[in-house]
Order: sequence, then C-alpha cells, then structure tokens
Amino acid sequence: MSDYLAKINGIDDLKRLKGSQLKELAAEIREFLLNNISETGGHLASNLGTVELTIALHHYLNSPTDKIIWDVGHQAYTHKILTGRKDCFANLRQKDGLSGYPKCTESPHDIIGAGHSSTSISAAVGLAMARENLNQMGDIYAVIGDGALTGGMAFEALNHAGHIGADINVILNDNEMSISNNVGAISNYLSTLRNDPKLKRVKEDIEFLINKIPRFGNTVSNTVERVKSALKYSFIQGVLFEEFGFNYLGPVDGHNIIELMKHFKQAETIDGPVLLHVITKKGKGYPPAEKNPDRFHGVGAFNIADGSSRKTKSKASYSKIFGETLSRLAAEDKKIAGITAAMPSGTGMEIFAQSFPERYYDVGIAEQHAVTMSTGLARGGMKPVCAIYSTFLQRAYDQVIHDAAIQNLDLTLAVDRAGIVGNDGETHQGLFDYSFLRPIPNLVMMAARDAEQLQHMLFTAVNYKGPAVLRYPRGAAAGDYISHQIADLKKLEIGKAEELIKVESEMDLTILAIGSTVYPAQKAARILNENGHKTALIDARFVKPLDEEMIIRAIKNSNNVITVEEQVLAGGFSSAVLELAADRGVTLKNIKRIGVGDEFVSQGGMEEMKEEYQLDGRGILENALSLLAPAEEVNKLWPEKKD
Amino acid sequence: MSDYLAKINGIDDLKRLKGSQLKELAAEIREFLLNNISETGGHLASNLGTVELTIALHHYLNSPTDKIIWDVGHQAYTHKILTGRKDCFANLRQKDGLSGYPKCTESPHDIIGAGHSSTSISAAVGLAMARENLNQMGDIYAVIGDGALTGGMAFEALNHAGHIGADINVILNDNEMSISNNVGAISNYLSTLRNDPKLKRVKEDIEFLINKIPRFGNTVSNTVERVKSALKYSFIQGVLFEEFGFNYLGPVDGHNIIELMKHFKQAETIDGPVLLHVITKKGKGYPPAEKNPDRFHGVGAFNIADGSSRKTKSKASYSKIFGETLSRLAAEDKKIAGITAAMPSGTGMEIFAQSFPERYYDVGIAEQHAVTMSTGLARGGMKPVCAIYSTFLQRAYDQVIHDAAIQNLDLTLAVDRAGIVGNDGETHQGLFDYSFLRPIPNLVMMAARDAEQLQHMLFTAVNYKGPAVLRYPRGAAAGDYISHQIADLKKLEIGKAEELIKVESEMDLTILAIGSTVYPAQKAARILNENGHKTALIDARFVKPLDEEMIIRAIKNSNNVITVEEQVLAGGFSSAVLELAADRGVTLKNIKRIGVGDEFVSQGGMEEMKEEYQLDGRGILENALSLLAPAEEVNKLWPEKKD
Repeated sequence: MSDYLAKINGIDDLKRLKGSQLKELAAEIREFLLNNISETGGHLASNLGTVELTIALHHYLNSPTDKIIWDVGHQAYTHKILTGRKDCFANLRQKDGLSGYPKCTESPHDIIGAGHSSTSISAAVGLAMARENLNQMGDIYAVIGDGALTGGMAFEALNHAGHIGADINVILNDNEMSISNNVGAISNYLSTLRNDPKLKRVKEDIEFLINKIPRFGNTVSNTVERVKSALKYSFIQGVLFEEFGFNYLGPVDGHNIIELMKHFKQAETIDGPVLLHVITKKGKGYPPAEKNPDRFHGVGAFNIADGSSRKTKSKASYSKIFGETLSRLAAEDKKIAGITAAMPSGTGMEIFAQSFPERYYDVGIAEQHAVTMSTGLARGGMKPVCAIYSTFLQRAYDQVIHDAAIQNLDLTLAVDRAGIVGNDGETHQGLFDYSFLRPIPNLVMMAARDAEQLQHMLFTAVNYKGPAVLRYPRGAAAGDYISHQIADLKKLEIGKAEELIKVESEMDLTILAIGSTVYPAQKAARILNENGHKTALIDARFVKPLDEEMIIRAIKNSNNVITVEEQVLAGGFSSAVLELAADRGVTLKNIKRIGVGDEFVSQGGMEEMKEEYQLDGRGILENALSLLAPAEEVNKLWPEKKD
Repeated sequence: MSDYLAKINGIDDLKRLKGSQLKELAAEIREFLLNNISETGGHLASNLGTVELTIALHHYLNSPTDKIIWDVGHQAYTHKILTGRKDCFANLRQKDGLSGYPKCTESPHDIIGAGHSSTSISAAVGLAMARENLNQMGDIYAVIGDGALTGGMAFEALNHAGHIGADINVILNDNEMSISNNVGAISNYLSTLRNDPKLKRVKEDIEFLINKIPRFGNTVSNTVERVKSALKYSFIQGVLFEEFGFNYLGPVDGHNIIELMKHFKQAETIDGPVLLHVITKKGKGYPPAEKNPDRFHGVGAFNIADGSSRKTKSKASYSKIFGETLSRLAAEDKKIAGITAAMPSGTGMEIFAQSFPERYYDVGIAEQHAVTMSTGLARGGMKPVCAIYSTFLQRAYDQVIHDAAIQNLDLTLAVDRAGIVGNDGETHQGLFDYSFLRPIPNLVMMAARDAEQLQHMLFTAVNYKGPAVLRYPRGAAAGDYISHQIADLKKLEIGKAEELIKVESEMDLTILAIGSTVYPAQKAARILNENGHKTALIDARFVKPLDEEMIIRAIKNSNNVITVEEQVLAGGFSSAVLELAADRGVTLKNIKRIGVGDEFVSQGGMEEMKEEYQLDGRGILENALSLLAPAEEVNKLWPEKKD
C-alpha cells in the first residue's frame, strides 16, 4: 500500500494526488476511520458514506475560500482528516479532544458549526448574501442528507434560495435514510429519481416519436415546438427541486470521485442555486455497517472483525425502560399513541412500534410537526406520547406553547437525553428544558431519578389531563434493580415531592434534588449525617408545580439549603425554589445552587462532565461542607474523586 | 334585501339556504364584517377574502363532526358568524369578548385554536390518525393560506401526510400574499398554476398530436401508451403537491360557492390526502382593502367611506423608530443587513428596505430560516439585524441556541412586540422571551424603556461583538419627545444599569425596573418620595448580564425591594435578581415581584391588561405600599385607576 494518507497534512497535499491515487486514498481513509472509531466510538456509517464525496470536494474546491457546510455534521470526519486533523482522532469526542462535529473554533475549514439537522441551506444562503454584499470570492457548498431534508427549515431555505436565485450548491447526500429508515413523501420521491428506469426509457421514446410526428404547416409546427418544450420540462428529473427554483443535477454515484468532480464543474457553470443529487451508501466498505447502518450510526467501541460491541452489557437505559413501559400501558389503553421524530431506536419508541404499529408514528426529522400532530391526536381523543431528545425539543418550543399548552391538550412529552449528554458536546446538551418549559402555563413537568420512578411518572403523565412533561437522562437508568419493570405502577400526586430523609426542626442542611441528582445527593446526605451534620433530603420530583408546602417547611427548618439539578442555573429548578421563597416572604439564609453556570458544556464522558460541574456525590458533599465545615473535611469524608 | 343573515343562528339555518340565496348571504356577511371591523378593528382583508369559502364549507360539511381547521385563524370571522356567534362581534377582540382567532373554549366548531402560522396540516394529520384509531366519523379540512405554506412545519406535515396517505383535505387559500407580498419559490410556483394558459393550451395540443401519431405495430403501440401516461403525468397541474403524495385539485374560484362545493364533492371521492387550490382575493368586495390588503390586514377602527383610520395620529411606534434607526446606522455601516420573516411593515423593516434593498431580506413566514440565514450572513462578515416579534421568535428558539449562540456569531435579534400585545390575546403575547433567552450562554439581552434608549441600544447591539438581543414593546414609544430621532447615539456599557433615583443608605424601597416598566415605576417612585417613603429606582437595562454590583448595593441598602417586568415571573428578570442575591449570599428581606403569573394573558387593550397585572404606575405604587404602608394609603396617593 502506498500510504497516501500518511503524507496528507492539509488540502494542499491532497491536491497533489490524482485519479487512481485518490481512490486508494479513499480506501486508506476508510481503514483509518474503522480503526479509530472502533476504539473511540463515534459516527461510523455516515462517515464511511462520505469518504469519496469529501475527497472530491476538497480536491475540486479551495477551502476555506470556497466554503463547505456540513449539515448535522456527523459526516465530516474525512473533512477533518483532510484538513490537518488526522492526528487528533485518538481523542475524538473525548474531553478536550477533537469534536465529532464541525466547529468553527477548531479549524478555518469548519465554516459553520453544527450538530442539529437541516440548518446548512439557511447558512449557505446567508454566506452567499454576505459574499454578494462584500464582494467576496468563493463557491458555497452545503452538504445535506436526505433525512435532514425532512426538516421544515430546509424547505424554508430552499424556498427562499430559489426565490432570490442565491448562487449556492446544495449537495443532496442521498443515502436513503436519516438515522433510521427515512420517512415521508420526499423520501419516496427521491427513490423514484434514483430508480425509475421507466423515465429514461420514456425519454428516449419521446425523442423517437417527436421525429415521427408529421408536419402540417406552420400552425402545427408551432404546436410541435410547444409540445417539445413542454416535454423537455416534463422529463427534467428533479422537477420538485426545479419548482423550488433550483437547477437539478444528477443523480450521480457518490463513490465515484471523477464523476463527482465532473458534476461540480457542471454546477459551476450554472448561475443561481443548484441541487446536485449524490447517491451514497451509509457504512460503505464495512459490511456490518452496510447491513445495519442504523446500529452503526453512532457507536461505542467495537470489534472490527464482526462489529460486536466491546462494551460489557450494562443496565437497561432510560429509553429502553420508557419504551417498555409505554408498551405496557398501551396494552391496557387503546388510546395511547407513540410519536417520534426520526429517533425510534434512540428513544426506545421502536419497542412500542413493534407491538402497536397502528398507533406509532415516525414523522421524520420534524419536531415541530411531531408536537403539533400530537396535539391533533389529543384533540381527536387519543393520548399521544411524543418522545424527543431535550436538545431537539428546542425545535418545537413554539408548538409546545401555542399548540399544546394554550389549548391545554392532553398529551405527554417524554424528554429524553435531558441533562449532560456526554461526547456529542455543546450542540446536544439537554440543559435548558427546565428553563424554557417552566414558564409555560398549564404544563406539568417532572424529572425521573431512577428506573422505577420513570415508570410511575410515565403512568402519571399519561393519565394526567393536560400537557405533561417527563424528563430523564441519557444512558443507564439509576437504581438497584434486577428486573427493571416493576409490578405496580402508581400515579404520583401532581406537585408532590418526596422526603427521602425527613426534615426535622433545626436541620443543619436540606438538600433539594431532582431527577438524576437525587442518587448522588443521597450518597452525600448519608455521609453528612454519619458525620454529625444533620441533613435532610427532598426529591422534588416536580419542577412544576413545586411542592410548595414541603419546600417552605424545609427552608424554614434548615440553616442551610442546597439545590442540585442537571441543568443550567438560570431559570431552572433552583430559580423556582428562590421564586417560591421570595413570594412567600421566607428568608433563605444560606443557599448554594449546584448546576451548570452560564456556559455551553463541552464534550466529555457523562460521568466526567458531571464531576466537573459537581453534580456527582462528591461535588454535592463538597458544596455542603463549604456551607457547613472547613474545606479540608471533604477530603476526609470522600477521599477519592469518584462516586 | 332579504336579510338572510338575521335568520342565521347556527349552521342548520345556513343549510336551509340555496343557490342565489347563499350569494346574497355572502354580500350581507361582507357588509356585516365591514360595519363591525370598522368599529372594533380586527383582521379585515383576510376575512373579506374567505366569505364564500366559509359558506361553502359549512353548507357542504357537517361541523363539528366534520372538522374545519383554520390555519393562523385570522380568516375565521365568517366561520364565527355562521356558528352562532354573530351577536358577539360588537366585543370582537375586546377584553372578555369574542376572540379574533378560533378558540376551542369558545365553540365546539373551533376544532383547533390558532394564531401562529403553518400548524393546520399537522393538526389535521393528528385528527385523521385519531379518527382512524378510534373509528370516528367526519371529514377533516385544513384551510391554509399561501403565505403560511412558506413555514417549514407546513412542509413537514405535507411530507408526512403524503407518506402515510392521511385522508385529509387541505384547502390552499391562495390570495397571492401572506401578510405583505408573498415570498419564495413556492409563491412563484403557485402563480404559474394560477396563470399559465400555455399549460392548458399545450394539453389540448398534446391530445391532438397523440391522435396523429402513426401506429407501427405493437412495439410502438406500447411506446405510445407509455408516452401517453408520461404526458398525463406531466400535465397534471400541481405536480409539486403530487410529488408530496397529495392529489391536487383546482385551481377553483374561491368566490364561487357552487364551484367550491363541486370540488369538495370531488375531493370526497378521493382516498388519501387532497390539496384543493382555491383562488381568493384578500379584501374582496371592499375597494380600499382590495387595493391595499397589507394595510387592511389588521386594522384599528376606520371610516368605511374611504378606509381612513379613525385613530388620531399618535406618537411614533417602537417599530418605526427601530426601522429609522437601523437605516441611519446602515448608512454609515455597509455591513449592516436587515432580515424579516414576512413582517416588513409590522417590524418597521420596510423603512430600511426602502433605502437598502440590496441588504434587505424578507424570507417569508420562516423564522427558523431567518435566524440561521442571519448567522450565515454574520459568518460571512456582515452585521445582520433580524427583527422578529417575541411570540414568533419562539419558532426559532433552537436556531438562536444552536446557530447563533453556540457559534457566538455577531448578530442582533430585534425582539418586537415583547410584553403584552393587547387584542390578539393568548397566542400573540410576548411574555416568555426573558425566560427562554436568559439561560443561553454568550447572549447579551437588553430591553428598551423609551424612544431614546431604543436607539442607543440598537447602536450598542449592532456594535457588540457577539449575539445581542434587544427587546421592545408593541405600539407607541414611551418618552417625551417631539422628534424621536436623537442627535447622538451612544454605546451603552454592556451589563450596566442606570440609577434613575439614587440608592442611598437605608432606603425604604428600591424599585428594580426594566424596559417598559421603567416609566410607570418612575411615576410611582416620585409619589412615594414625595410622601416620605425613601425610594430608589434602577433601570436594569440589561437582563443579561445583570449589573451585579449596582443591584447588590441596592439590595443591601434597602429595606424593601420591588422588581417589575412585563414578562412572566417564572425565570425572568426577577429570577435573575433572586439568583444573583442567592449566589452572593445577600439576604433579600422583603421582595415583591411584579409581572405575569402562571397563566396565559387573554385579550384586551394593552393599557387595560397592563393595569390588570399591576404593570402600570398605580399597580406598582400599590405593591410598594403593601410593603411600606397601610392598604388605604394607595387610594390617598393615587385616587384614580389610570396612569
């Protein structure tokens, strides 16, 4: 093997390679990706699919004068390799390491940072208008997957770009799926474009026939011309994109570098927006990923030989327990429906889908529609449960207010991946939901502390009349359990907290915890009590409505109060406590709020990042002792840095 | 005149009318609408455009078994008239009166409440799926304007509905404009469908030619068949909607009741989603509104004779001052660009557009794209200023976090209509923005108290490096001014509050106000000081970052503190103050937070509603005296209920 990759430290090195050398480079990059991602974890299938496309783009263009925007950004590893970052892959997605997504601060070649879907065309339009106004140079390419095209904002951007004739190139990276199987009419449409040999045949037939049409003098000759032009129009492929004002090119094999570059050249000759339809295969070149691209979308470390995970079997995830509990409830209640926005596997909704396909809806990457469609289901008498990651629920914020809460409809929002999400970093953190949901009237919002409570809370939410939100973290569910499904589901009283360690008079400290912070708070509270610091612990359970009586009683009877939440501190759970105390005229003597400050939380292991923000047991203990005792006591009581 | 309208107290009465009687009824309804809206104000042009469409729908269908969903909802007055609410029009949009939008609590015929755009197809899909699962009866009709179709979520819903073959009828109410002129490729596309006689001619020509094609035996006969079917496909109008999986019907004259009903009948024979393209004229039947539908979109009371406004000329609005100031800044700085999402007139952006058309972008009803396109402009080196109403910014929440703040790009969000908006009611209140924006890192957020400060703040925001948010209310700008444009613009120090009445030691009270509440707080503070209550007043100016030093000093030196904000109390300005005090370990002795509690604010005059929530001078005084003095003192110091 020539080892071209070893010689590439930037795109200038790439440009020295030609023809078959590029093909070999592609093979080397694929091997590099497999070797690295199998160690670090990361997005595998999408990156294996874009190796040639990225090589072709960087070979043909001059980045960063020419600008490449990666929609979502989970397919940009080859871009990172070619732009001088291949040596950083050992730390991919690790704390302080290489981001799994484009990031402006990481390289001048990362034009637009991303993580969420469907933003690239909008950014491209903006860049094009800046170029126009400031007389800049450079072509602008947005690379967007067919899945991302189901997001409404991509259509908003297509519509506007076509209207103003923005000179941008949209590469539709069509791999026939978003994260799981693709959804929607557009998906069917694309598959027609890809596969319909009939269209090509008809095109040939038409030409044959037109030549056979007899001439009848001028009148009909004009008619023939008109027909010809109409026919030309009708056999343009990609008429949908043409209607949006785009010039459609393709489809082209996205694994053929030479063909791709030919098409870029063709696109260059066209003024105004171009949509280049590129067909790629997710997981290309690695049989287990080709066969099962869904499972190899985002992976942990795995064995290359067979694709098996290296992770030892862990406890059930919140998502899985959610999916199972929903199925269990749905078996009893025919009105329950399940809605996901392209995350059937991630949210555990696929478990529900297997048993109740007729009440299951995957709407594509379309959170706005997911929520409002759920309100329609509710208005029609169903009990919809819509599961969305916290970070993506930000996309449906207005729908939660305008369609769910104002109309006070009976639906459940299951907010998965709430809190710190780990290696995906800034763009995916679920750290704002308390703050943006708490101000909304009519909403009830709770957060689950463990496997068991999640089940009670889902049961409670589904049976609550009105919009109910249930929040839970990414990953393995807390709690000591063997079978995670519990025998009896019980409805929690709305707005009722749980006193885990009783508030008596004259407490040294009360810890007010919620959701994922209850277990670490419990550990800290036990140690404090064992060491003579009289400590109470309340699991608030509801961030809205708060258990006002219990919390006021706790504040009144405690010399110190700690709140702890896996959320930003501005406007979250602790603010709700402060508001309550202020409105009741109860003075909070010493309060310490644990949570995330005014910053975006960067990537890193979930536990690692929780430790950094003192959301673990030791962090809570440390904060408690800073109120109660000399600083050195924490090292005595909790010597190690781990829970 | 027969006065059919007088006899209509519900849709059963409507169904007794036939043929030309319905036409007469339409004329009567138009007169009724004009007479009423000219008194109360309201949405005129859109409602004049849908009179016949609504009559046809209710005559043909059986509401509420059949379900009519009005997108946005500003075209549903005739629907209200026909469903037994005509006697309520005297109180249209007034406090406790008839809503200007569909509202589920108002009538069983209002299936889905609305106010914001582009939600109706999603709701229709949900209703259709509920009908399917629960074996319900009834047809489902969504009525959506061509403007609302530029909103991405409408496409998300089309894509999903087409995919699952949902049996719904979407009536595209095509009046060639959203609120102002329509934007986007789809708009051009619709106008082709409407106007292209060539298509029709070619269709006839094709049939002529096909008959002339000589036959060559079987092979070519098959070819001819294939060509015929291809041609049929190519001359279906509405191929864009067909690509989405919809059956396209129309276009049909939306002012011809008989024709409309024929098409409804046709739609009924089709399983799966139908898009019926209806052409209407905004303002139909009232020449001033036909001529200038933009001005007659939402109106105050006016004189029917000439359409002139009855309102006496008031002070300049914040929106106007914003537009003028932006133009003034743009004259000096070529990098400034202006972006609006279909609200050029409402936001004052049209003033900028007139002088700087090459840097002005109206993207359609597409707030998500508006914000992310702005980030693209910023990344390209421009200084974009994107003006969006507070309530509609909820649509772009994720874009503010993901595209603007995480990337820390240099753009300005001008948040218009922030606070209580008056007669539009619940769906349009701008009462959540402090709460949902404050938790976002990197953002700077200020609120203008008057005409002058708005200008300084816009100047400050545009020159601040990073994402800056400027919030200001609907309506006339506060302040005593003759010319509202001030001589010298100055940059405010970021995070610096203004001490309007100095904090000295041992104050009885400090009022912490921000934005629209500063002036009424000032009045209250003056009266308090004149009556022996030593009162300080701080205009916080920035909700993020807070002026920590000044606020801490004020708290420490005051026996009582009042915060006052035109916002919900959960997570807003007052919460920021509470968080600050808690984190600094400063005890807040007596604090009173004035703002909106945990409820949706209903419709009513702006001043009237502000009074209700004690956001006026008297309300603030009342709260102050509740802390400082016996209850009866307020009546002594401020006897009347008005500012």
